[in-house]
Amino acid sequence: MRHCSHEWQVNNGGRGLYELTQKLQDWLREVDARVGWANLFVPHTSASLLLQENADPDVRADILDYFARLVPDGDHGFRHRNEGPDDMSAHLRSVLTQNSLIIPVREGRAALGVFLFEHRVRPVSRRVLVSFQGVMEED
Amino acid sequence: MRHCSHEWQVNNGGRGLYELTQKLQDWLREVDARVGWANLFVPHTSASLLLQENADPDVRADILDYFARLVPDGDHGFRHRNEGPDDMSAHLRSVLTQNSLIIPVREGRAALGVFLFEHRVRPVSRRVLVSFQGVMEED
Amino acid sequence: MRHCSHEWQVNNGGRGLYELTQKLQDWLREVDARVGWANLFVPHTSASLLLQENADPDVRADILDYFARLVPDGDHGFRHRNEGPDDMSAHLRSVLTQNSLIIPVREGRAALGVFLFEHRVRPVSRRVLVSFQGVMEED
Repeated sequence: MRHCSHEWQVNNGGRGLYELTQKLQDWLREVDARVGWANLFVPHTSASLLLQENADPDVRADILDYFARLVPDGDHGFRHRNEGPDDMSAHLRSVLTQNSLIIPVREGRAALGVFLFEHRVRPVSRRVLVSFQGVMEED
Repeated sequence: MRHCSHEWQVNNGGRGLYELTQKLQDWLREVDARVGWANLFVPHTSASLLLQENADPDVRADILDYFARLVPDGDHGFRHRNEGPDDMSAHLRSVLTQNSLIIPVREGRAALGVFLFEHRVRPVSRRVLVSFQGVMEED
Repeated sequence: MRHCSHEWQVNNGGRGLYELTQKLQDWLREVDARVGWANLFVPHTSASLLLQENADPDVRADILDYFARLVPDGDHGFRHRNEGPDDMSAHLRSVLTQNSLIIPVREGRAALGVFLFEHRVRPVSRRVLVSFQGVMEED
């Protein structure tokens, strides 16, 4: 068993879902991962991660709409507004979702698709830590 | 340290909470797990997992009621309705909970109970990936 | 690769956010962790964990306010009220956040800050299971 890790810089176009599945599969192949666990970790508190198939784009639109209603931008109850109306709402959307995901890996492949869930409105560059712990092809 | 994994087929009776604790304990004993981490992973986007003691059944009823109010079935805002009024609400309930859980294992036992959280109304058969990474009895 | 674990008793002052970051860093140094994953696990269903920088205290106040609105204490819909108006709301706030977090460790340090998120109103003593899986300094 081994541990290996890497860091990605993911430039996104602002609020939305950005698929990381292929990027993760490519990295798992590159490090020769066979069976174990992958971890994706977003070390930011206004973006998160979402396990999701790349299925119907309507699902992704509905997810964004739902969060817009659940945690509205510019809510008058918010004290923290330093970076605009999407500042505190982005933090809360991150709290209600996940910044760290363990994804089982079998035969070198992740068990489900994964997206970066960007909560800030404007384009942002995010760090994503990717790591794998388990058995490699050559073990 | 080793990694071992298995897959369960869990047939459920539709929307509700189904305890997996004993199934997990039995599997941990079967593979001779001693100390480490167990992972449960639901590779579906309309069911999830819940850490919970099997305590008061009222707690489980209140959880179901609360989610029925937080993400109502058949919400008129939803675009995605292919599989009925509980289709998109099931996806969103899954987004707001967790599909992958790490549970510490000590002396061969998981640190807390765990349930499958089925969000679709009708009975469904779900895959649950179970794995353990850590030290075995014979290590 | 190794696994090591410990248990903390965290006495808190009731509902609020209590930073565990330094406690985790100290423990990682004590066990000589170098690179791998840390896990924090709260084996209770009315408290949880939050990844957060110790930034603006307004952010923490807004998080508490938001959860007070999202899951109000003493909601008339709740059946389970054994331990008062903050009993079921505490369970639901725990369901909507996380009780188990994997945090990547590099050069002996955790990738982001972490807080105990206490949902009960009165001061409580909580168990927090901490563990590390990965490569130690002497490996």
